[in-house]
Amino acid sequence: MPSYAAPTNDMQFILHDVLNISQSDIDGYGDLDADFTGAILEEAGKIAAEVLNPLNASGDQQGCRMENGVVYTPDGFKEAFEQVKEGGWNGLDMPEEYGGQNLPYVIGTTMVEMFSSANQAFAMYQGLTHGAASAILAHGSDDQKATYLPNMVSLEWTGTMNLTEPHCGTDLGLMRTKAEPRADGSYQITGQKIFISAGEHDLADNIIHLVLAKIPGGPEGIKGVSLFIVPKFMVNDDGSLGARNGVACGKIEEKMGIHGNSTCVMNYDGAVGYLLGEEHKGMRAMFTMMNEARLGVGMQGLAQAEIAYQNALAYAKDRLQGRDVTGVKNPEGPADPLIVHPDIRRSLMMQKSFTEGARAFLLWGAMLIDQSHRAGDDDAEALVSLLTPVIKGFVTDEGYDMTVRAQQVYGGHGYIEEWGMSQFTRDARIAMIYEGANGVQALDLVGRKLPASGGKPVMAFFELVKDFIKENEDNADLKSGFLDPLKQASKDLQAAGMYFMAEGMKNPNAALAGSYDFMHLFGHTCLGLMWAKMAKAAHTALDAGTGDATFFETKLATGRFYMARQLPMTGTLLARIQSGADPVMELDAANF
Amino acid sequence: MPSYAAPTNDMQFILHDVLNISQSDIDGYGDLDADFTGAILEEAGKIAAEVLNPLNASGDQQGCRMENGVVYTPDGFKEAFEQVKEGGWNGLDMPEEYGGQNLPYVIGTTMVEMFSSANQAFAMYQGLTHGAASAILAHGSDDQKATYLPNMVSLEWTGTMNLTEPHCGTDLGLMRTKAEPRADGSYQITGQKIFISAGEHDLADNIIHLVLAKIPGGPEGIKGVSLFIVPKFMVNDDGSLGARNGVACGKIEEKMGIHGNSTCVMNYDGAVGYLLGEEHKGMRAMFTMMNEARLGVGMQGLAQAEIAYQNALAYAKDRLQGRDVTGVKNPEGPADPLIVHPDIRRSLMMQKSFTEGARAFLLWGAMLIDQSHRAGDDDAEALVSLLTPVIKGFVTDEGYDMTVRAQQVYGGHGYIEEWGMSQFTRDARIAMIYEGANGVQALDLVGRKLPASGGKPVMAFFELVKDFIKENEDNADLKSGFLDPLKQASKDLQAAGMYFMAEGMKNPNAALAGSYDFMHLFGHTCLGLMWAKMAKAAHTALDAGTGDATFFETKLATGRFYMARQLPMTGTLLARIQSGADPVMELDAANF
Repeated sequence: MPSYAAPTNDMQFILHDVLNISQSDIDGYGDLDADFTGAILEEAGKIAAEVLNPLNASGDQQGCRMENGVVYTPDGFKEAFEQVKEGGWNGLDMPEEYGGQNLPYVIGTTMVEMFSSANQAFAMYQGLTHGAASAILAHGSDDQKATYLPNMVSLEWTGTMNLTEPHCGTDLGLMRTKAEPRADGSYQITGQKIFISAGEHDLADNIIHLVLAKIPGGPEGIKGVSLFIVPKFMVNDDGSLGARNGVACGKIEEKMGIHGNSTCVMNYDGAVGYLLGEEHKGMRAMFTMMNEARLGVGMQGLAQAEIAYQNALAYAKDRLQGRDVTGVKNPEGPADPLIVHPDIRRSLMMQKSFTEGARAFLLWGAMLIDQSHRAGDDDAEALVSLLTPVIKGFVTDEGYDMTVRAQQVYGGHGYIEEWGMSQFTRDARIAMIYEGANGVQALDLVGRKLPASGGKPVMAFFELVKDFIKENEDNADLKSGFLDPLKQASKDLQAAGMYFMAEGMKNPNAALAGSYDFMHLFGHTCLGLMWAKMAKAAHTALDAGTGDATFFETKLATGRFYMARQLPMTGTLLARIQSGADPVMELDAANF
Repeated sequence: MPSYAAPTNDMQFILHDVLNISQSDIDGYGDLDADFTGAILEEAGKIAAEVLNPLNASGDQQGCRMENGVVYTPDGFKEAFEQVKEGGWNGLDMPEEYGGQNLPYVIGTTMVEMFSSANQAFAMYQGLTHGAASAILAHGSDDQKATYLPNMVSLEWTGTMNLTEPHCGTDLGLMRTKAEPRADGSYQITGQKIFISAGEHDLADNIIHLVLAKIPGGPEGIKGVSLFIVPKFMVNDDGSLGARNGVACGKIEEKMGIHGNSTCVMNYDGAVGYLLGEEHKGMRAMFTMMNEARLGVGMQGLAQAEIAYQNALAYAKDRLQGRDVTGVKNPEGPADPLIVHPDIRRSLMMQKSFTEGARAFLLWGAMLIDQSHRAGDDDAEALVSLLTPVIKGFVTDEGYDMTVRAQQVYGGHGYIEEWGMSQFTRDARIAMIYEGANGVQALDLVGRKLPASGGKPVMAFFELVKDFIKENEDNADLKSGFLDPLKQASKDLQAAGMYFMAEGMKNPNAALAGSYDFMHLFGHTCLGLMWAKMAKAAHTALDAGTGDATFFETKLATGRFYMARQLPMTGTLLARIQSGADPVMELDAANF
């Protein structure tokens, strides 16, 4: 049975040695010294390892069930949810006035990783509540905030996001759910939504659905979409719960993974809804949360890769099979452990160098969000908007791939459900799809984010890379192992951007055909930058003689692997991009 | 619900336009004209589409179950098995004296693809029987052949392969199952085998287990392993079935996929076994079947990619979502079909160019096996031995990846079991693991096949590529689109081989650390060669003005995609290989 230990040392390294958070002047960062963050990480790690992870496999096996319209989560979920609630974990980065602790988002992000690693299906009940609460926080009236936020921050109530309909996912302009105005200013919501995570369950007294719908007579398509709050139970003026609203779960979907999360078909049958934000500006309201939501999904990709790696590593150290070709390593035993074999190490190093690089990438992204929200830094906002589709698309693709590799380390046992490795790949698979399928992320990156503000954000990214290389070019320790490969990756990324500019003007398909490869090219470059920064931090610590030298040496070796073996992928990605639109577009649809 | 149509046109193109089978002087190939093979393909395709495929999803949902020691296959499997039996499909390439039709292996291979696409879990009952029968054919005494083969060829009885034990998979030298000689010349088999596909079921009257075990007192390790025939029911001298033998299914494993196939823990409790081949030469007996068995598993990778692609394509043409950025394509509808979008096309073209390239690769491999077995061509045997780990490792890795891409085309629906796309990835996943995990294939390729006969087979491969390029270099149609990229890939492959030779002498880990990348580098080069050959054949047909011009034009466009966008991967793979052992090996196991 798999286990989980929170990678708190690595998180501390990134927060303090790489991002130097406590030296930042972002509001609230000054308090985040290593002792303080260490205490939080340890507590969150304990919940993850001791409360959530033990329910991961059983939750997968049992799944959710619906009986007479009531949805039951797997055994133990309710009790675990109470513990998360009591610990105040959902309020970590929520405002104090609604019961939160007002800590920076970067801290909340470390908790999201741990909870998602330990039990993704479970963590989603909380994650969606956090997302829905953020939307109400950003767009709600004072009255709405007062009505819903305290209970959502505390997890007395949970939340959902209702976007997809049977005939429309990406293209929400085709939406049919309608919201008809009622005399009292509320709306009557009618329609069917599908793929609603945590849509119905037994963990909370009330569920606050955020629902996209069209007000009849409004603009056509996506411009006529509004966002509504639709509580499962009506909330009385005194805050007590009233009658059941006209919303019900029609069915729980049978999915490839995340069985412990109830993915519901939700039927709205004249349910009472309250406009959240402005009429017809529903998509804008959704988009303001998008960076955070997509970062959260990117985190799931990392989180599954992390727990899969931990277990693959344990198995590789434990399982005796074959002998080291350069000499027996375990003469007392009948065979050497798997980890002596170069190809097993290759796989483990791929996983390790990915998870550590991606963790730095995500925490940097979270810090940029804090910089934007807490310090009003528009450049940080522009940069994280640019990086968001990369985080979501690249990290979930690679994260999934790493779970497959971890499963492979187990050989035949990896395919047997009892061993638990299959669940990681099945759970990780969804992150490539929801919150905007990864092809849509690539489109967002190349079609919207790249040309945004005349390309200013992407130029800022290149400057950042260039400056880092320049600042450190005299550092012989970094030069050949880190800076040179980073420079090459950045050059490939720029060449791809130039290609899009030159060709995309003539033919938008020239850019779109290469968008997915560009997203990966960007992702590898970001991880290359993260590894160069981590290498610098490791060298600095080694020079200072502080901390655990083995930790920093290991960090450097792991980084060298990424730079030498993973980063050269940028060359292939650039070649694909530069092959242009023709190979992708020339075939008539009829001739496929 | 997914559907399947056998790609018979594409198979005919490869058999006749590319491999020119009926012009070959291999025994039996002269009869294989297009009408003849067309008739077989059509019949096999019909069974696949109409009998096996309708049971694929239901077989996945129901799985196998054991009650009181009896294993039941999913509803409908028994009836379908009868139809396959009646059609004589298992004897297609078996000798006439045992009831087969003695057709070449290349024809049997087309059937394996179709049956595996349609229902992999089902096809395995037959596939394992075919494999076990091949082993008895190659190593059995006349008496053993007469006793078992007619019933296995006809599918009255099925077969299994028993290698793995709980503590040993790859490293079979650790095996504990023992075979004690009995006075009558038979053996008493005792031990536990796991992961035994089709180990117990209700489809046949008897099951013939081939079991690896150690005869006490024999050589240590892998050199003391022998192969035994252990029937489920004893066979009387008159061929009738006697008493139940001491072998029983202990448990059916719960797996990620291929639920319709019973993967059993098999307990041998003093079962009567008969030595197959020589004492202590069990591995050699297994290895003589290995090329075919591994080609069969490679075929499963292709087969799942094919059916997944077919359904992704259908969805991409049907699902309306978004608009073509270069202009509306479906003005009558609320949106354009997915296939207008460049990123969807990119994914579909990846799938299409892989499956068609891999099909040519596999059928070429099958033809080499015929050349070896039917024409006694040792060079062909050496070449196919070299290519076998590439076929198994590369095609199953890429095949799995393509099923993931196909699933992605469905967006959220791809994650819902009801839509059937998840099953293709779950079923395809096993092919990367069994019959030698893909890392073991890479080891076999670099450690055994590459240095075999002083490198003669790999040099022969390079000659073959060189000769093809040379023969066609005046063909302007092929030059830039096909021959130049092929030349580059082949150059990268040679450079990798040279690196292994130069560095591997000093440090075997320098070669082993790059073995997996080498396997993929080799695979891409093979598919590049296949596409160049297919392009030539398509041009020849277009010049001759015979056949369906659109088919050949489509073939060329699909090939151009592979050469322009997939083949550049060889550059990254070479860079990884040339980074050597250090990045992979430098970390102490304790510091992971």
